[in-house]
Amino acid sequence: MAGSYDVIVLGAGPTGENVAERAVRGGLSTAVVESELVGGECSYWACMPSKALLRPVTAVAEANRVGGAVGARLDPPAVLSRRDSFAHDWKDDRQVEWLQKAGIDLFRGPGRIAGDRVVKVGDTELRARHAVVVATGTRAVVPPPLAAVNPWTSREATSAHAAPGRLAIVGGGVVACEMAVAWQALGAHVTLLARGGLLERLPGFVGDLVAEGLRDAGVDVRLGTSVTGASRDGKVTLTLGDGTTVTADEVLAATGRAPRTEDIGLEAVGLVPGSWLEADDTLRVGSVAGGWLYAAGDVNHLALLTHMGKYQGRVCGDAIAARARGHEPTVTDRSSVTCVPQVVFTIPEVAAVGLTPEQAAAAGRAVRVVDYEIGNVAGGSLFEDGYTGHAQMVVDENSKRMVGMTLAGPGVGEMIHAATIAIAGEVPLDRLWHAVPSFPTMSEVWLRLLEAYGR
Amino acid sequence: MAGSYDVIVLGAGPTGENVAERAVRGGLSTAVVESELVGGECSYWACMPSKALLRPVTAVAEANRVGGAVGARLDPPAVLSRRDSFAHDWKDDRQVEWLQKAGIDLFRGPGRIAGDRVVKVGDTELRARHAVVVATGTRAVVPPPLAAVNPWTSREATSAHAAPGRLAIVGGGVVACEMAVAWQALGAHVTLLARGGLLERLPGFVGDLVAEGLRDAGVDVRLGTSVTGASRDGKVTLTLGDGTTVTADEVLAATGRAPRTEDIGLEAVGLVPGSWLEADDTLRVGSVAGGWLYAAGDVNHLALLTHMGKYQGRVCGDAIAARARGHEPTVTDRSSVTCVPQVVFTIPEVAAVGLTPEQAAAAGRAVRVVDYEIGNVAGGSLFEDGYTGHAQMVVDENSKRMVGMTLAGPGVGEMIHAATIAIAGEVPLDRLWHAVPSFPTMSEVWLRLLEAYGR
Repeated sequence: MAGSYDVIVLGAGPTGENVAERAVRGGLSTAVVESELVGGECSYWACMPSKALLRPVTAVAEANRVGGAVGARLDPPAVLSRRDSFAHDWKDDRQVEWLQKAGIDLFRGPGRIAGDRVVKVGDTELRARHAVVVATGTRAVVPPPLAAVNPWTSREATSAHAAPGRLAIVGGGVVACEMAVAWQALGAHVTLLARGGLLERLPGFVGDLVAEGLRDAGVDVRLGTSVTGASRDGKVTLTLGDGTTVTADEVLAATGRAPRTEDIGLEAVGLVPGSWLEADDTLRVGSVAGGWLYAAGDVNHLALLTHMGKYQGRVCGDAIAARARGHEPTVTDRSSVTCVPQVVFTIPEVAAVGLTPEQAAAAGRAVRVVDYEIGNVAGGSLFEDGYTGHAQMVVDENSKRMVGMTLAGPGVGEMIHAATIAIAGEVPLDRLWHAVPSFPTMSEVWLRLLEAYGR
Repeated sequence: MAGSYDVIVLGAGPTGENVAERAVRGGLSTAVVESELVGGECSYWACMPSKALLRPVTAVAEANRVGGAVGARLDPPAVLSRRDSFAHDWKDDRQVEWLQKAGIDLFRGPGRIAGDRVVKVGDTELRARHAVVVATGTRAVVPPPLAAVNPWTSREATSAHAAPGRLAIVGGGVVACEMAVAWQALGAHVTLLARGGLLERLPGFVGDLVAEGLRDAGVDVRLGTSVTGASRDGKVTLTLGDGTTVTADEVLAATGRAPRTEDIGLEAVGLVPGSWLEADDTLRVGSVAGGWLYAAGDVNHLALLTHMGKYQGRVCGDAIAARARGHEPTVTDRSSVTCVPQVVFTIPEVAAVGLTPEQAAAAGRAVRVVDYEIGNVAGGSLFEDGYTGHAQMVVDENSKRMVGMTLAGPGVGEMIHAATIAIAGEVPLDRLWHAVPSFPTMSEVWLRLLEAYGR
């Protein structure tokens, strides 16, 4: 068998789907190759099931923290059943239907680059007239001591059908923190073992607030803790750096991600299998002759987030379509380095975008950092009794524009897009003074941050 | 007694407080005159107590609409007690303390303008070197048929200590809708009688969704209904335009606002007592010779919202300080006409900013209106099972900028500030494409609106 398309996309996750959709809109015939479920990690083992688990937990916590609202509690089987529904019971019929409607051909199976613009899917050879796009995403990295006990990864943590009695979580990043919130609420006794602090890429107050939230929920949070050994014998026993042990019924390895580029034939085009792929601001892999290879989403290591993969997918699909018409793309990726938003659905929530003070300093920018307690805003105290939360704004002192914002506190998830617009829109602080936040919402923290900055 | 100040402010609500604070920061001696409680309507009989009542109602509703979260309910006495706490039991000690710390003198009693830069508070004559600012706000208007039965106004509706068995609400605006949500949830059987539709200044879908939400909660919503007569004899009987009657234990007149300018001596400077005061973009009343009279907040009829009053207060205080130093203000009011945000804390919530399609058309602007169902965004469906909500974006086709946004749906209140920044910041749509919303938040509706607009 054989076939030819303008564009061939490896990976039918959100990134690949967006590349394909934009390419088709640009008039290009497009095929996607997927070895697992159409919809990708996000739909079945990441964003969607994890947030389906977390939203009821958050709703209950928020209700019980408002004076006059009482009695909210979780029904764990119903939470798990809700999650199943959001993961479409791990069936991809709806996504396949979407591909068909969008006019995108699907090839099931592992895809391998077999040469210049050639992709093999089993015995089928596909030829691309314009571009091949790698959008295969990442997989969990399981470090050696844990590999021996076949631990949960993010996949099992988001798809398990019952809470373990005791769950040990190794890691301090987003997966570790979110899954600690979820499974502790669903009935597990969670012990979280982090080598350093929590959510360490963000300003320190974030990790402090999240650790406090986890401890309030009953999680045994142990920071600065390494795992040096692991064994499973019915139960799992972890040996820690200080020689003590932790016993649990299950262990989740939430210790990082690696690109799924081992078995996609990178060696055929002179690249190293298993490596991250460096892409330019049109998502093209410049090191491959002929300019036909692109890498969008997690595999390029720019920003390992579904929405950034989708964004890159749009830019990438449009860029391929522009080049197919013989001209250079007018819209390039402006955001994957300096304007990446992220929401962490812990209790409290965390939301951040742009540069942290550390990143700004590392980039040689002269910045001023302004802090404010969200609980001092009327909207915060109304949202939750005894509201605890913090906002931090990073201002570039040369351009007098905001370049970063970090929020931690209940209900901040939907607040970050305002900062994303301010940063992406390069809105001067002087102009932000005229963007009046509604009283009494928590967004009034904007006013307080600007006042604290001064004018 | 007598005294002289650089600035005298009539009214110690949020607007007056902000004028005074900015004037003091500008180096001017400042007095405020207040006949009731320092902190004003907002603190004791509007925003704060109403939102203290509504937040528990919303938290319970939101929790119960998420699969896996069960059992949330209201404890009405606790809700009322929470409200009392947010209204500081109708004592203004804390606000008085704030004034003192800010270096602002307080005169208690009704203030009257008695001539050029002269204000009388009882027997005390105060002279202003630079400016007198009217920030006396508004009061409820009670139309003739209801006046006879001494109805609740917004004041009683936000401060009552028990739910009436049956509450009739006359009106279809913000006060009517919010108080219908609150008192129905607190145990009253509410009948809402609106002459037209609900929240009619906003696009039609808003009133439809709010009416549906009220009906789902059990409120008897009657639109297109006039009240032609009223009598009280233990209970209240309202006669409607069609000759039928409604019987209730209490009635709330939520039928509009009038400026509190009847008894402040406007006649002494050639203005009409009881009228709205027309102010320019420095909040100055241009029609008064000498340029010393200002009107900020509700009394100028620009935007009857606490946050806009506070904003005007900042602009006004800074303008007075600039002129006292002999130069014209550099920062003027850019937002009170075209960039006014508002959040209505109904179920579902409503949030809007900028121009509606009707307002844009009336202003002669060529606009395109883009609509999207928030329930189709992953963040919406995760937030609440069966999420129902709608987003509408108004784009100026000449400038290719957003000039208006209206959102109606659970949890949209904190989402509107993003639109406020986009409008105030005059961010081109082409640039908004690079403001990536986090997945899976409801803010992804931005992406869908931009896609629907097309590029």
